[in-house]
Amino acid sequence: MENSNTPSECESEIHQEIQPQWPQKVWEFLSKLRQTSPLIQCITNFVSMDIVANTLLSAGASPAMVHAADEVADFTPQVHALYINVGTLSDHWLAAMKRAAAIAAHNGKPWVLDPVAAGSSGFRLRACLDLVQLRPTVIRGNGSEIIALSRAAVGGTKGADSMHDSVDALEAAKSLAQSSSAIVAVSGAVDIVTDGQQVIGAYNGVPMMQKVTATGCSVTALIAAFVAVDPTHAFEATASALSTFGIAGELGVHMAKGPASLRVNLIDSLYGLDEETILGHAKISPLS
Amino acid sequence: MENSNTPSECESEIHQEIQPQWPQKVWEFLSKLRQTSPLIQCITNFVSMDIVANTLLSAGASPAMVHAADEVADFTPQVHALYINVGTLSDHWLAAMKRAAAIAAHNGKPWVLDPVAAGSSGFRLRACLDLVQLRPTVIRGNGSEIIALSRAAVGGTKGADSMHDSVDALEAAKSLAQSSSAIVAVSGAVDIVTDGQQVIGAYNGVPMMQKVTATGCSVTALIAAFVAVDPTHAFEATASALSTFGIAGELGVHMAKGPASLRVNLIDSLYGLDEETILGHAKISPLS
Amino acid sequence: MENSNTPSECESEIHQEIQPQWPQKVWEFLSKLRQTSPLIQCITNFVSMDIVANTLLSAGASPAMVHAADEVADFTPQVHALYINVGTLSDHWLAAMKRAAAIAAHNGKPWVLDPVAAGSSGFRLRACLDLVQLRPTVIRGNGSEIIALSRAAVGGTKGADSMHDSVDALEAAKSLAQSSSAIVAVSGAVDIVTDGQQVIGAYNGVPMMQKVTATGCSVTALIAAFVAVDPTHAFEATASALSTFGIAGELGVHMAKGPASLRVNLIDSLYGLDEETILGHAKISPLS
Repeated sequence: MENSNTPSECESEIHQEIQPQWPQKVWEFLSKLRQTSPLIQCITNFVSMDIVANTLLSAGASPAMVHAADEVADFTPQVHALYINVGTLSDHWLAAMKRAAAIAAHNGKPWVLDPVAAGSSGFRLRACLDLVQLRPTVIRGNGSEIIALSRAAVGGTKGADSMHDSVDALEAAKSLAQSSSAIVAVSGAVDIVTDGQQVIGAYNGVPMMQKVTATGCSVTALIAAFVAVDPTHAFEATASALSTFGIAGELGVHMAKGPASLRVNLIDSLYGLDEETILGHAKISPLS
Repeated sequence: MENSNTPSECESEIHQEIQPQWPQKVWEFLSKLRQTSPLIQCITNFVSMDIVANTLLSAGASPAMVHAADEVADFTPQVHALYINVGTLSDHWLAAMKRAAAIAAHNGKPWVLDPVAAGSSGFRLRACLDLVQLRPTVIRGNGSEIIALSRAAVGGTKGADSMHDSVDALEAAKSLAQSSSAIVAVSGAVDIVTDGQQVIGAYNGVPMMQKVTATGCSVTALIAAFVAVDPTHAFEATASALSTFGIAGELGVHMAKGPASLRVNLIDSLYGLDEETILGHAKISPLS
Repeated sequence: MENSNTPSECESEIHQEIQPQWPQKVWEFLSKLRQTSPLIQCITNFVSMDIVANTLLSAGASPAMVHAADEVADFTPQVHALYINVGTLSDHWLAAMKRAAAIAAHNGKPWVLDPVAAGSSGFRLRACLDLVQLRPTVIRGNGSEIIALSRAAVGGTKGADSMHDSVDALEAAKSLAQSSSAIVAVSGAVDIVTDGQQVIGAYNGVPMMQKVTATGCSVTALIAAFVAVDPTHAFEATASALSTFGIAGELGVHMAKGPASLRVNLIDSLYGLDEETILGHAKISPLS
């Protein structure tokens, strides 16, 4: 990753220069992930555990689903990144999430938040806002979730499904990135990534991935693994992970007869991705 | 759904008239489900969460796995139907189930109960009987579960597997439907649906589906989605959901090499079902 | 199983005689499992529940995921074997595990322990050591887990992934088997089984199975099912289950494009295994 600029500096230059570098960046992240196999602690929802673990394994990371409040003090300092997802939240789990996030922050470990359905209840919104206070490295959600977090307001969501496209949430994402100091990613027809100043779009993926449960959770886990590889470049890591997962979906949908075979093919494709495919498919560019 | 009679009236006429209408009814439910994409709250067991969510997504519904007791007061009033499944029951979850069921009933939302392994312990039986008191719209179980609920007695089960065929449970199902005012469905070689008076059989499905974990849980979730589409016709919705899932299994088994590929094909087939396939395959008829 | 010797007697003779009998033994266990369909209670981690249940169903057993502390007193005496896996451990679950294990031991039911990531935290190590005190019939782990248990020491692990090959853990496995009176199995490039005296290696399986989450959990569940078939020959049951699962993986990998299709094929292959395939593929032999 030599020559990469700190995301927040010289924004206009980056906007002109960064584009041709992106596919190469994506490949560098993925190949480094495979070489180093970082240990990723996941405190994630029950629905997603199987596909999140398999996504991480197929990408080359080492997942560890460890959530006991009694255990995080011992365990979290050993990991390379922490992933927290509030999908099937309850009070016991929330306590463990907060403890793990605080330990990660204290130990300088990157951690990534998926604020599932943040706007769908007061309990969930408060939980997510409390977690944002614990300084996540990256926050990835859909449009409705990022808007709810940015406005600190309930509403505008249908369970875990977004009622807003990612571009509708652009200003909310920038605002949240600025107030939280996190990289913020918004999934949608175009995936958006911002550090509060610069904004890029990742254009990989296929709509049918939304018909496979927990693909959003899985790509957030993949972001955690990419960030673990190079925590000082979380912006690039986030965009690269989104693009990688999207490419796997594009390859997977070709052979798919529906959402269940897409899921199988997506994981298989992620496992098999090579340099040529990444360089030929990665589509990341600045959004004005 | 014009021309549909209230289930409990003019039973003998229905028995003659309803048969040719059924495949069309099944298709109307499925197409309306796809158009409206109802939000279905699922408080279901850990084993089933992935396949339940994927079943609902593939059918066109929007699943939301939300179970925190702190959250149901905010969340349950927003949903179109609630699904409760006691598979991996524990006291914390039971408290949330009861609260959500009471809120659903109070708000006039349909809710559907899957009393997994109801007869296998005193704790589980009491939990299920308490939930039945909260007036589910539909109860679906296997023969042993429905017999245990109807008799309020432990026994006659082997974990979650039935020791009774569905037809053995016919009188128990009618009795439970009458005492609970719920539509009662019993899965088996023939799926039975009764409102306490009329009884129909749905003849779709293949035996290998029993070798795929949580297919029973999944079809109960699908019933919740079908009922959400038209809560005033829960009897027809229940039979239509059972037939739809069974047809997906029939299509899926053709290409399957075993239970795992059947599972993939089942979800793919559910996603791809069209009118011609439904009209050609749905087999629902009165049981004397 | 006629002619089979008690594992601990006449070790040297067994080492010469047992080898040609093994493939036939493996087939006898699997066919008896299919005939009797034992009920296996699983208190296992959230990640593994789906694949564990599907593994047991495909092999012919009847899984029951029952973990409530309120329920085990009623339920555990009904089962043919109990499987405990500490993967996503928390204090509530640990209490239920201990209660279930004690009931199983008291009722003479075999029970099998999977000490996932035993050395990764003090909480987890103490939990596993406490469970070992409750006299499991079989303990199966990877090299790091068995070494951690044998030394009663934290460390030497990377989450749930081993930092030791199975043969590195041979002495630790023998020592643990002697101190616990359990059969101890260590998974790795070669799977090792010991009763503290004799040691055999099972040579089936493919490396890509490690890229599918919870395959280790699944084979431990399969061990529980094989032990349920003949609790007096837990050593042979353990080796036979490891070989059976490995053969299913070998068949499955031929058609696989990556870890997700391997998972599908593995379960399908397990379901379809016949005598000829078992006899032609099972590779079990003494390790000096």
